[in-house]
Amino acid sequence: MTTVIDIYTKEPWIKKVSLNMPRPSLKDNTADVDRLVRSLKKEIGTEEVSIPFPLLSQIPKKLRDYEYSCIAAVYKEKTHWKLIDLCPQDTDKSIYGLSVDLGTSTIVLRLLNISTGQLLTEKSFHNPQIEIGADILSRIHYASQPGGVETLQAMVLKRVNKEIARLAQASKIGTDQILALALAGNTTMTHLFLGLDPYWICREPYIPVVNKPECVSAQQLGLGIHPHGPVFVFPNVGSYFGGDLIAGILASGMNRLEEVCLLVDVGTNAEVVLGNKDWLMGCAGAAGPALEGGVASMGMMAGPGVIDKVKIDPISGEIHYSTIDDLPPIGICGSGLIDLVAQLYLAGMIDLRGKFVKERCGKRLMEVDGIMHFIVVPAKKSGTARPLTLSQPDIDSLIRSKAAMFTILTTITKTVDISVYNIGKFFIAGTFGSYIDPRSAITIGMIPDLPLDTYVPLGNTSLEGSTLILVSEEARQECLRIRDQITYLELNVNQEFMNLFSAAKFIPHTDRSLFPSVKPFIT
Amino acid sequence: MTTVIDIYTKEPWIKKVSLNMPRPSLKDNTADVDRLVRSLKKEIGTEEVSIPFPLLSQIPKKLRDYEYSCIAAVYKEKTHWKLIDLCPQDTDKSIYGLSVDLGTSTIVLRLLNISTGQLLTEKSFHNPQIEIGADILSRIHYASQPGGVETLQAMVLKRVNKEIARLAQASKIGTDQILALALAGNTTMTHLFLGLDPYWICREPYIPVVNKPECVSAQQLGLGIHPHGPVFVFPNVGSYFGGDLIAGILASGMNRLEEVCLLVDVGTNAEVVLGNKDWLMGCAGAAGPALEGGVASMGMMAGPGVIDKVKIDPISGEIHYSTIDDLPPIGICGSGLIDLVAQLYLAGMIDLRGKFVKERCGKRLMEVDGIMHFIVVPAKKSGTARPLTLSQPDIDSLIRSKAAMFTILTTITKTVDISVYNIGKFFIAGTFGSYIDPRSAITIGMIPDLPLDTYVPLGNTSLEGSTLILVSEEARQECLRIRDQITYLELNVNQEFMNLFSAAKFIPHTDRSLFPSVKPFIT
Repeated sequence: MTTVIDIYTKEPWIKKVSLNMPRPSLKDNTADVDRLVRSLKKEIGTEEVSIPFPLLSQIPKKLRDYEYSCIAAVYKEKTHWKLIDLCPQDTDKSIYGLSVDLGTSTIVLRLLNISTGQLLTEKSFHNPQIEIGADILSRIHYASQPGGVETLQAMVLKRVNKEIARLAQASKIGTDQILALALAGNTTMTHLFLGLDPYWICREPYIPVVNKPECVSAQQLGLGIHPHGPVFVFPNVGSYFGGDLIAGILASGMNRLEEVCLLVDVGTNAEVVLGNKDWLMGCAGAAGPALEGGVASMGMMAGPGVIDKVKIDPISGEIHYSTIDDLPPIGICGSGLIDLVAQLYLAGMIDLRGKFVKERCGKRLMEVDGIMHFIVVPAKKSGTARPLTLSQPDIDSLIRSKAAMFTILTTITKTVDISVYNIGKFFIAGTFGSYIDPRSAITIGMIPDLPLDTYVPLGNTSLEGSTLILVSEEARQECLRIRDQITYLELNVNQEFMNLFSAAKFIPHTDRSLFPSVKPFIT
Repeated sequence: MTTVIDIYTKEPWIKKVSLNMPRPSLKDNTADVDRLVRSLKKEIGTEEVSIPFPLLSQIPKKLRDYEYSCIAAVYKEKTHWKLIDLCPQDTDKSIYGLSVDLGTSTIVLRLLNISTGQLLTEKSFHNPQIEIGADILSRIHYASQPGGVETLQAMVLKRVNKEIARLAQASKIGTDQILALALAGNTTMTHLFLGLDPYWICREPYIPVVNKPECVSAQQLGLGIHPHGPVFVFPNVGSYFGGDLIAGILASGMNRLEEVCLLVDVGTNAEVVLGNKDWLMGCAGAAGPALEGGVASMGMMAGPGVIDKVKIDPISGEIHYSTIDDLPPIGICGSGLIDLVAQLYLAGMIDLRGKFVKERCGKRLMEVDGIMHFIVVPAKKSGTARPLTLSQPDIDSLIRSKAAMFTILTTITKTVDISVYNIGKFFIAGTFGSYIDPRSAITIGMIPDLPLDTYVPLGNTSLEGSTLILVSEEARQECLRIRDQITYLELNVNQEFMNLFSAAKFIPHTDRSLFPSVKPFIT
């Protein structure tokens, strides 16, 4: 985070300025609000200052209580500065802000001191809308029912407000000391957060309500920070290219680099951005939930007891794995699954089509209802007292997903006639992505066979991007520029795409020359 | 009104524009709101368009219902244009607006067609806050109690909303077709209208909450016109120089004239503006309620049966009067009172000090509790069955008030070293002022002895000014410029002022050479 922040100036768009106004007199009988505006204009050095209407009535008492010497918290909206509040001179000069990653499954809040950039505390929790439906489509469907949008919005707001109160308490500050909030999420999640019906997002031609929402006050949304604090919601490029990815670009810094880079957010949708400081092209395509481990019978989200890394001894066929918190294994997460399939292939236990090689798997194979299963963890070692297995359909599904991802990467680079081998940096956005071992992802042919140091996992880029926005006006402007600059490539699933896809449905690929570094121990 | 409107361009700040947007497609998947903004920018020819947050959620349905071809109602706020609403192409293209004179005693609403300037209907009614207190000070006092401001604001809003609904119904339009409201009133009335506590307005150094309120949406105020329509409240110059006088300047057009003019609003406060297109100076001073007839025992507000004109035959001493609606007399209004005293003086029935001349008054004089009364209407002719009388203290009080007015006029012209005889136009603002016979006002020495055609009664200038604002962006800008341009002259009630005041406490003045046209029949 530090390196990225350093590429933007720290010129803030949320400020506290100290004001010393001349006291009213018969010779200077300017009204309180106009006196304040005059002083703000002078102190900020701007011609445009506005005071939100609900604040007007509070001004006279505050100015008198503070004897016309106070701290004003203000923020910049387009060309003018807006008052958030007035506080006494001896108030805490720090400005606190909240950056938010609004995920379909998980919401992460980060409380930070905007003035210093210091991170105070973070909290991650499930998106309470999961109760309505785990995936985006079921929520869009629910939203279309009467009162649906309001219900979904209220669920998130209620939980977020509860967590904000907790974070503030833990950091010994009041919630009204949190003056701003920046939030990145996919287009549907941000729509529901703003109380907008995502109905047309999933219907051709896939039109969001809004691409670039203006700043809203916390009060207008019902958010539990300072009522007049601004809420910045990342802009989206389209229904399937959300603010989370714009946040990713911002957090990666690729928009400031000379070399052409790729940014990938691995998930149910494979979201890809290609470009550099001069141009940016994005596309998104369905990859299916397999890469996240969401399909495999033993697949689950990362958590205690979940297998996250796998190693198979090619000689003995012995399986080594690690679990989160070193607990007995209860399932496998996406990164573990990619490891597992890569290791099975390298050990010759599956072939290039991903089919089990009986003679190599031996006793680990079992048939249930006519479907072959590979026993990853026998019942006696399993945390569930039942064997953890990987089925042939699980592998097939993963191969389709990785093939989709690789095809999308191939398509976008082909479109601009750039070889993947000329990619300077390959950024992997998102918390999930940062757990993937690039070596394994290359082995299964999900990502190109580039030098390993080309791959840069970025972690939670929605949160990092939101944090950047809060800290730097330049970053905020850049974010809007990025949005306007991106060319969105509509993936045309035509015959050529299907041919590329078919060729990628092998481990690592039909064209082995594309993956010279992948050398199975036994072929 | 027509002549004044003609000096401003009719370039509107509230418009209806016709939009024909390209329909969404896979090749143009811009979000609905951004599509609308893009189209608005093009159509209006501006770079800045904003959509109020509460409108966002309505956009997708409206655009689809209207098949991306519709009428957008917008208004200009500072440098950007804001959406009010979208309506079908076959909607009434007219824009309706409401101009409001928010008086302490009387509120007048005027419904007009902004597009054509056509006046539809008007309604005048008592300010319901009178129930709390007839004068400004009692309302300021009430406002300082807990919940006082809210109560006072609600009283006005409730009544105004009721009348708006009636006016709309009478004009066969919906209240949501009224897209804007402009309102002028004194500083206290506009503060209460906006829900702002006028506490400091009457306390040295007399500081309003706000001089230049920004446009508020009707919804924010709870006004019963289109919820997203702008409400323009005239700016004030100070606690005792309100938006009603700015509206008066605007309606008079003096701010565009070469010649130096005076504008006077006659009331409890004598509010005076001097200047021309290059400069404007204003002052306000207490004149007392006598000029409005508020003090005299037979004084009352204009209404049926109230004497509004008086003529005394200097030979016979016979009194001729007219009453409103020709009903039997029940009292006298301010303009009638000025007539009466002027006529009494010309007929030699009062002397230059305003004292009754017994030999001239004869049987019309009677003494009650040691105080002399002049019988204007004997009991048998009175609508109240009791004689209507004018007492010596009534006359004394009127003389003090007219002396205050004349002294203020003298002081302001002296300050800029201009002779009143060089005044090009002497505008009289306000409904009350328009009933005053300048000849009588000159006779009692209330206003300077200028050729009668110098005096221009303007009627309800708050209403005219508000109407102008609604019709012309240039007028609106001019209004803000006028406010910033005015030099407010703090009346310093020093020895010199008191000397001038003493000299003016005669009919017409101690210095008779100042009033050559005033020739009493009998001296």
